[in-house]
Amino acid sequence: MPELRRDPIIGRWVIIASERAKRPSDFSFAKDPPAPDTKCPFCEGNESLTPPEVYALRKGRTRPNGPGWHIRVVPSISPFLNTKGDLDRHGKGMYDLMNGIGAHEVIIATPHHGADAFMKDLSQIEKLTGVVIKRMRELKKDQRLKYVLIFKNHGKVAGGSNISHQHLQLIATPVTPKRVKEELVGSRRYFDYKDRCVFCDMIRQELDQGERVFLETKRFLAVNPYCSRFPFETWILPKKHSCDFDTMTKEEIKDYSNIFQSAMKRLAKTLGAFPYNIVLHTAPFRRRKKKGYWETIEHDYHWHIEIMPRLTQVAGFEWGSGFYINPTPPEVACKYLKLFQA
Amino acid sequence: MPELRRDPIIGRWVIIASERAKRPSDFSFAKDPPAPDTKCPFCEGNESLTPPEVYALRKGRTRPNGPGWHIRVVPSISPFLNTKGDLDRHGKGMYDLMNGIGAHEVIIATPHHGADAFMKDLSQIEKLTGVVIKRMRELKKDQRLKYVLIFKNHGKVAGGSNISHQHLQLIATPVTPKRVKEELVGSRRYFDYKDRCVFCDMIRQELDQGERVFLETKRFLAVNPYCSRFPFETWILPKKHSCDFDTMTKEEIKDYSNIFQSAMKRLAKTLGAFPYNIVLHTAPFRRRKKKGYWETIEHDYHWHIEIMPRLTQVAGFEWGSGFYINPTPPEVACKYLKLFQA
Repeated sequence: MPELRRDPIIGRWVIIASERAKRPSDFSFAKDPPAPDTKCPFCEGNESLTPPEVYALRKGRTRPNGPGWHIRVVPSISPFLNTKGDLDRHGKGMYDLMNGIGAHEVIIATPHHGADAFMKDLSQIEKLTGVVIKRMRELKKDQRLKYVLIFKNHGKVAGGSNISHQHLQLIATPVTPKRVKEELVGSRRYFDYKDRCVFCDMIRQELDQGERVFLETKRFLAVNPYCSRFPFETWILPKKHSCDFDTMTKEEIKDYSNIFQSAMKRLAKTLGAFPYNIVLHTAPFRRRKKKGYWETIEHDYHWHIEIMPRLTQVAGFEWGSGFYINPTPPEVACKYLKLFQA
Repeated sequence: MPELRRDPIIGRWVIIASERAKRPSDFSFAKDPPAPDTKCPFCEGNESLTPPEVYALRKGRTRPNGPGWHIRVVPSISPFLNTKGDLDRHGKGMYDLMNGIGAHEVIIATPHHGADAFMKDLSQIEKLTGVVIKRMRELKKDQRLKYVLIFKNHGKVAGGSNISHQHLQLIATPVTPKRVKEELVGSRRYFDYKDRCVFCDMIRQELDQGERVFLETKRFLAVNPYCSRFPFETWILPKKHSCDFDTMTKEEIKDYSNIFQSAMKRLAKTLGAFPYNIVLHTAPFRRRKKKGYWETIEHDYHWHIEIMPRLTQVAGFEWGSGFYINPTPPEVACKYLKLFQA
């Protein structure tokens, strides 16, 4: 009998096909064609192939837009949103619109080509995390913006670009994204009722039960959530309550980078070169202390990373209903992910 | 400057890239591999290759599970939900779950193989619409169920099966799907404020402006919605307010089948053999007249068909934010769709 599970945060239902659970070897995904044989714009030395950098973590006294960097941040070459202009919110009859103001940046994670080297270098992951935080804090100063979404698309079916050089994307938006709002509203509702954070409760129950947690460090855990939408979906959460990713201490950044590296390694060992999306969900910018909604975010909300392997297809049923169908129960996924040493 | 547009029904934001609008010829999609050379289980004469039919619109005195039918409805061979059993709603600590009870049926749209013949035969489309209504009314009697979602996946990237024989899918669920609930809540909110149906207002504004309506019949219109998530997204709506698809009269079914056929023809002429998902959004079952929420559905909500061409990829940004990026403004899509005679 399949199971219908309800996500405790936003109330989304997932159909878990618990009978004929799909194992890692049951998924087939097309290998991406080799990257085109052109000069990589993200490699050290090719800085002139990107728009001028908005920030770079540089070695010693190197100059902007030249070699000598650890991490480099450049505007997207085909940005979805514009940095310049006013929001100009207005209506057209019953419709509401505003100018597409925001930022769309590419965070180049390493000066070296090739994904493998980056994922093996813990200190580079720490540097990357530091730069992400720096950009978030910087963009927060822009009064037009409400949110920064950090994400990564890997592999063609996951919408990844054909630049294989490791990079993240950053999009800053003038409205809080709907998906994040749903989590904020859901976790506030839970807090109103229980006087506890829904994520903290989830973490406690997961650590007690153990059947969906495959990694635990001093400060973090990696879990296949009870209500996973996708096979091998993995969340990374801080054990200590915190709504903001960008308030991590140096020690926390170290520990976070470590569990992120280990989780990705285990997923890759289990699934091969799998396509995926990663998103960071953290609290929106809070500039004014408004009554109600905003003032509670600090204790309601809990930042987390969602790693979504794209092994199944999202089709009409999912689009039409908002239901997801997951052929691999998270308990089964977790068993596989526990098999491998990081 | 890109535009940020807000959907008036559920408040979803879409980024419309209005500067470098993508035209039909800018989209490339892989052609599906030819269907495997096996016996088609949906063809007349091959009835034994499917589970026994749950309903069929038959010619004269033909016998169940044999030839002689116009439309045939069979259980899915790999159902997501089970028809037998109790819901058994319960909790596991903080988590909520229930048995995966529901129905998953395949509605075979024609006894003949090949998509083209079906789409040219208006009377067959009318028959299909009639059978969909019949199944919805029948499943409504099952007290465990709350909703019937009708959908179609066409093409591999849209999650379509490799059976090219025309068919629809039906999934009946024991909870109202989240996506539908969002529309119900959004349209109730609008009604509370304006004392008018948000869809009716939308239809009026679209017919007044004309820049996004590409087909209009006596009772229906086909529109590229203001806040289209996908290039060439198309909605079909009844002009007369109605929340239930299954209350259509014979005349309405005729007119609906006609506009559906014309809309699909124009899309195909504009885009070629494009992959797509189609979903029907209609009101959930209402058995008890509850205060508030349910009793208002009749005047709040408005059924409609959503046709979603899958020419763009949904990736990390969309998953993480709930934003959509649409490179073809609906006004541009509409211009193309107006070019062709149906």
